Amino acid sequence: MFETAFTIEWGDCDEAGIVFYPNYFYWLDCTYQRWLRTRRLSQRELKRRFNSVTPLVNVGAQFTGPGRYDDELVIRAEVGEWQERRFRIDYKLSVGNIQVASGFEQRAWATVTEAGGLRGASVPTEFRELLK
Amino acid sequence: MFETAFTIEWGDCDEAGIVFYPNYFYWLDCTYQRWLRTRRLSQRELKRRFNSVTPLVNVGAQFTGPGRYDDELVIRAEVGEWQERRFRIDYKLSVGNIQVASGFEQRAWATVTEAGGLRGASVPTEFRELLK
Amino acid sequence: MFETAFTIEWGDCDEAGIVFYPNYFYWLDCTYQRWLRTRRLSQRELKRRFNSVTPLVNVGAQFTGPGRYDDELVIRAEVGEWQERRFRIDYKLSVGNIQVASGFEQRAWATVTEAGGLRGASVPTEFRELLK
Amino acid sequence: MFETAFTIEWGDCDEAGIVFYPNYFYWLDCTYQRWLRTRRLSQRELKRRFNSVTPLVNVGAQFTGPGRYDDELVIRAEVGEWQERRFRIDYKLSVGNIQVASGFEQRAWATVTEAGGLRGASVPTEFRELLK
Repeated sequence: MFETAFTIEWGDCDEAGIVFYPNYFYWLDCTYQRWLRTRRLSQRELKRRFNSVTPLVNVGAQFTGPGRYDDELVIRAEVGEWQERRFRIDYKLSVGNIQVASGFEQRAWATVTEAGGLRGASVPTEFRELLK
Repeated sequence: MFETAFTIEWGDCDEAGIVFYPNYFYWLDCTYQRWLRTRRLSQRELKRRFNSVTPLVNVGAQFTGPGRYDDELVIRAEVGEWQERRFRIDYKLSVGNIQVASGFEQRAWATVTEAGGLRGASVPTEFRELLK
Repeated sequence: MFETAFTIEWGDCDEAGIVFYPNYFYWLDCTYQRWLRTRRLSQRELKRRFNSVTPLVNVGAQFTGPGRYDDELVIRAEVGEWQERRFRIDYKLSVGNIQVASGFEQRAWATVTEAGGLRGASVPTEFRELLK
Repeated sequence: MFETAFTIEWGDCDEAGIVFYPNYFYWLDCTYQRWLRTRRLSQRELKRRFNSVTPLVNVGAQFTGPGRYDDELVIRAEVGEWQERRFRIDYKLSVGNIQVASGFEQRAWATVTEAGGLRGASVPTEFRELLK
């Protein structure tokens, strides 16, 4: 379980004065990265320590209310499902007491081969423990 | 059915040399807007002609291959489902002969009330005909 | 004088692992907006209170070092010049003790006419006082 | 001399209905990349062929008119100055017959050292010829 916050900036909103929706995914990805960081991990550290990356496989979001310029957007993340070679992070996004969106990112665990390609692999127990 | 193309630019990619995924949603939204344009519609025209907007309700994407800097990304769109007050656009994204992603946007039809708020409403037949 | 900070996120960097430079301008604009906010101002409040906006006229930046993923980017802003109808905000951007960039935004003061257009006008004393 | 065009998309504009200005720099960078491409160059090809990159040193833009959603933005680029180790590309941005902005990017020529760092170097004649 991890929680972080972002300020919705002028440039994040469209002509309708609400968040241009692709920016929500920028914040989901940022939340994942910030979460890793609190566990002393990062994209680079994952590569160094596990010789692995966590490419996105499947992603989605539902929007139930508007996020607006100047709002503080709070995002709560938790792993919703561990599979052998994949894991899904669930996100809840709120402004004040209002949930404005929910979303998920399903990521694969992939090790870097000698040829520089990627091969799916089991999510290491150590990594699972870190995101508990 | 509508098809358009984008060039994947340097700034669209991350350190791994592949598209930073939120940008795919930028392109989905652009594809929708371009499609409207070919029907002599646009966000502004929708408002003028139908007093309506089409806010996003639900969105998702699956990634099956990498999009890289300099690639031409072709996006094909079609309406996958018409509901009374909603419609879902399905997208297929490919680079050359390879499908790199698929996605969807479910949008609501909402009319602007006198107070300036939004109220869900039936998708007009005229609009359905235009996106056929 | 105003200071704020941003985390450089994965999606802000390009394949070379350093900030894709247009993002620096996003942060300059955000810094301006955050500064206004601490003065109980905002784009909307400027319009409500002064019937005015502050469109960008001239902008620039010089880059002296790399900003990287995970770095905390500190931005210091101050008004470098007040003109009758314009003002220039100077920015210094640093990561740790290293200045990585400097930049400026020159903005005009413009009031909204009855027809909805913009007309250059003198920067109000009240606004100058607020950004001191 | 090189010319290219972009469609200003919904997501490129802010609440005021005009381009959020950092996006102009995204387009300047894209124009440079597209120009390289027509010369059979690219960031990767520069590295392969010249073992070099062209990091940004100094950048600026002046805004003289609004770019709006649905506008076709035409950008003309030419090298405004060659220095021993740097070059400046000048850009003119127009919508229809109206010039909406001008800008420049000054880039350095830097070779990649054995340790992986960057060292300033003379711009190769071959590169100068290609951007004529």
